[in-house]
Amino acid sequence: MKVVIIGGVAGGATAAARIRRLDEQAEIVVFERSGFISYANCGLPYYIGGTIEDENDLTLQTPESFWKRFRVKMNVHHEVTEIHPDSKTVVVRNLENGTVFTESYDKLLLSPGAKPIRPNFEGVDSDKIFTLRTVEDTLKIKKYVDERHPQSAVVVGGGFIGIEVAENLRKLGIGVTLVEAAEQLMAPFDGDMASFIHAEVRKNGVNLMLGHMVEGFAGTDYGIDVKLKDAPTLHVDMVVMSIGVAPETALAKNAGLELGIKGSIVVNDKMETSIPDIYAVGDAVQIKNFVTDEDTLISLAGPANKQGRIAADNICGGDSHYTGGQGSSVIKIFDMTAATTGINEKTAKVLGLLTDKVIFSPMSHAGYYPGGKIMTMKVIFEKETYRILGAQIVGFDGVDKRIDVLATAIRARMKAYDLVELDLAYAPPYSSAKDPVNMAGFIIENIKNGVVKQWYYEDYETLPRDGSVTLLDTRTPMEYNRGHAEGFINIPVDELRERIDELDRSKPVYIICQSGLRSYIASRILVGNGFNAYNFAGGFRFYDAVRNDKALNRKSTPCGMDKN
Amino acid sequence: MKVVIIGGVAGGATAAARIRRLDEQAEIVVFERSGFISYANCGLPYYIGGTIEDENDLTLQTPESFWKRFRVKMNVHHEVTEIHPDSKTVVVRNLENGTVFTESYDKLLLSPGAKPIRPNFEGVDSDKIFTLRTVEDTLKIKKYVDERHPQSAVVVGGGFIGIEVAENLRKLGIGVTLVEAAEQLMAPFDGDMASFIHAEVRKNGVNLMLGHMVEGFAGTDYGIDVKLKDAPTLHVDMVVMSIGVAPETALAKNAGLELGIKGSIVVNDKMETSIPDIYAVGDAVQIKNFVTDEDTLISLAGPANKQGRIAADNICGGDSHYTGGQGSSVIKIFDMTAATTGINEKTAKVLGLLTDKVIFSPMSHAGYYPGGKIMTMKVIFEKETYRILGAQIVGFDGVDKRIDVLATAIRARMKAYDLVELDLAYAPPYSSAKDPVNMAGFIIENIKNGVVKQWYYEDYETLPRDGSVTLLDTRTPMEYNRGHAEGFINIPVDELRERIDELDRSKPVYIICQSGLRSYIASRILVGNGFNAYNFAGGFRFYDAVRNDKALNRKSTPCGMDKN
Repeated sequence: MKVVIIGGVAGGATAAARIRRLDEQAEIVVFERSGFISYANCGLPYYIGGTIEDENDLTLQTPESFWKRFRVKMNVHHEVTEIHPDSKTVVVRNLENGTVFTESYDKLLLSPGAKPIRPNFEGVDSDKIFTLRTVEDTLKIKKYVDERHPQSAVVVGGGFIGIEVAENLRKLGIGVTLVEAAEQLMAPFDGDMASFIHAEVRKNGVNLMLGHMVEGFAGTDYGIDVKLKDAPTLHVDMVVMSIGVAPETALAKNAGLELGIKGSIVVNDKMETSIPDIYAVGDAVQIKNFVTDEDTLISLAGPANKQGRIAADNICGGDSHYTGGQGSSVIKIFDMTAATTGINEKTAKVLGLLTDKVIFSPMSHAGYYPGGKIMTMKVIFEKETYRILGAQIVGFDGVDKRIDVLATAIRARMKAYDLVELDLAYAPPYSSAKDPVNMAGFIIENIKNGVVKQWYYEDYETLPRDGSVTLLDTRTPMEYNRGHAEGFINIPVDELRERIDELDRSKPVYIICQSGLRSYIASRILVGNGFNAYNFAGGFRFYDAVRNDKALNRKSTPCGMDKN
Repeated sequence: MKVVIIGGVAGGATAAARIRRLDEQAEIVVFERSGFISYANCGLPYYIGGTIEDENDLTLQTPESFWKRFRVKMNVHHEVTEIHPDSKTVVVRNLENGTVFTESYDKLLLSPGAKPIRPNFEGVDSDKIFTLRTVEDTLKIKKYVDERHPQSAVVVGGGFIGIEVAENLRKLGIGVTLVEAAEQLMAPFDGDMASFIHAEVRKNGVNLMLGHMVEGFAGTDYGIDVKLKDAPTLHVDMVVMSIGVAPETALAKNAGLELGIKGSIVVNDKMETSIPDIYAVGDAVQIKNFVTDEDTLISLAGPANKQGRIAADNICGGDSHYTGGQGSSVIKIFDMTAATTGINEKTAKVLGLLTDKVIFSPMSHAGYYPGGKIMTMKVIFEKETYRILGAQIVGFDGVDKRIDVLATAIRARMKAYDLVELDLAYAPPYSSAKDPVNMAGFIIENIKNGVVKQWYYEDYETLPRDGSVTLLDTRTPMEYNRGHAEGFINIPVDELRERIDELDRSKPVYIICQSGLRSYIASRILVGNGFNAYNFAGGFRFYDAVRNDKALNRKSTPCGMDKN
């Protein structure tokens, strides 16, 4: 059997190694357009900032090491230009010497990946505008930074790469303006949770411009101008474009493979394309969203690696299936960690799902043990069925652990209230006896049993201010006086029973406290005394973070560096 | 409704607060024998060592704060001495003034906990011998340490408390000898995994005496003598006894409640005892092991808290069920983290389960990103069914995360090979594209599909040395020369194809490498060339750690402080 693989990075390299392990006799030939194989895609931004110091650490394997261990012919600087399914051949161009040749295959695996989107803006070809996808891209940025000592940069696009690049440029002391067309960074998060991300980015000196569109670029004697719609032009020394990626599927299209969303390659769960003996994996393929069962694109290393393994199994006569991706991801944002799994509220809404959610602020570990940090956790579930749809967590410690537990619960199709039963490992340096994930389950179980009714940030503007409802803040007077939501009166939870007659039993009470715990207790006191009461999901801490963020976003300008 | 609760710590305090939240009108009375309620049981050792600096941090609530918030009468220094189910009353002694009174109840909840076992040794009542269970115990030790400046201590018993106390005494500069009757510390772990724990304890200057029994104590002018079977007497300044706990159930017994293992209180899954309107939770009750469905005792804070909540629900007319514990636990051991969930091999063997396992050494996060640490992971599953029975992990970072993911997979009744599908969050600072838990799944899937056959540490002694099998080490010559298992020849994996004729195809090959990855690849090369090959589970790194530990345990003496 002769297997040809197009693309030698995550999915392709994984598949090549796995095919060899399953079939010592197969002939395995890989064509990789760049000069590097099996490289640390996700580590590239950290080489620019110097966290990863040695360039060699970026490449996990070389063509030589891959040959030695796996007898795989890794051809770098080779681009496959045509696929001929009828003759089972591909046409290859050696990019070093320009020669073109034909290679036959019994099985063909496409792992072409995706390429950074580079819109057709005026001046976009400037050599001061960079993208970041390959080792070559990285070295180019690194060289520019080392030799030209840029003092200022615009990063366009606030997704994973954009934020990681912004952080790493800041680490080098470069002034960074991050321009994002949407009203928030990190699209996998809902806007409310993104508020915490914005605050962290601002805290670290990034000039954050949300809701701003780039219109074009112009090279100047000293640097490059970034022209914006609705805002003055930015004059900087360099630009990194990171507004997303598009599947690299021109080749697949020309070969007549069935294409899906954004021109991605359609595969079944065995990673087989529409043409026999051609498989595809990685960022270029359309997969099922595990939560929604909808077709989707997920550009993440984990799924690519899993798919590579599955394709290899099937190429070698096995019967392996990819059961879909759920978009679990995590990102370090300066000192913060932000992680998500499943779908967010925005997506659920688009799909017409009826959702509910819990939002709260647990400690990463027992409060009495030093070093615990507050995180903000949001778990979204379907009303009625209590199917867990997704979760988002932002914080400083223990975030990745909780998202992985929730990702596992989603994969196991657990119900949201089943989270109460998870038997998680506790010792003071690591967690609390009631782990944050258990806590999410407790709140959800309370919702299910009618023990708690919630109100949400989205309700704030529409709460009646005509005296027909009571707005109650149950924090201490000191907390209340430091800042509170307009229209809320203050009765500390611990005085509520004595002062309950100050409240009108005929009016529903909307309660808030700092984290949501005291207001929950207050809601139970009120309900136990004949009131109708609603607890604010997230607490004042959450309310305040979202509100401040909205205010800052409104006034963000290219000139003012935010000092918050 | 009037609810009386015996015991105001984890389970009792949780239940009291929950009952109040569910029933604003209930009368709730708690009797706690000690002077403190709702205290940070698991934090106590860290107060001794000074990690937790403020004594007030040990008590999460006071009787006053509990009354203010929950209208629960928390009576400390009150001991319930009798339960009269017929009259639905309890007899209570006020330990401060000696008065005795009777209290009626509609519902009674027992949360008496467990008490440290203090065997009836000669001299065990010395005031230089301590146990650690309550805040009072902690303050006593702290006072002794602060005032008497002990230079040396014996800790008897190498479980959670014993190790945490040993660590905290070491932190104070006290010489510590840890005496454990079993051949290993931390009984929830198998002996092989405990080897890593032993190494960490020794590295931090603890004189570790495994397999040694204490026979008695004798106070001296200067300190206390600890008399051992089979070893010279130890002369030290203080002793902490931490050989385990026993359910506090004399009260339950006298009341005629059905008792189970070690005199524990028998409850059903609603936490109801054998007598109507009496519930019990926490360390004193017998529960179901979630994995084996056997009756068991689990003395951990997480289950106690969950049970308290469930009992409260049912006391208030709800229908909540405790679905069993799986013993998930984690412990900081100096710089190391050790965690476990489910059952270990020892237990599986006792139960007659046919098990298989994977043992490997993944990095906590991507190797190319700084700060990654190796961990050792063992996952145990049932043969044929591939039910996950348990997991044990020792390492320095990311251990608690992986054990919680595995704990969740066990709770969801996932199959061991389902671990390949977990969609976990990856970025270089947090994990690898193939997370360690996925890796466990990959190996297990390979076992299931016959892609890999394993051999184990236990097989080493019985491997034929008569030339009928080939013993092959596939590391580099440099690694091999630094140390290898006796009888193994060296062919590096990357030379194996060229040198394959040096091996006899008619003989099975037992392969080892450093971590298990290169030997796995070698096994596939050999199988692909007509050999019968077995891969060593755990790699030489594991083999070496277990072997060194066994050698050290054999020569451990009370006199020699191990310098390894």
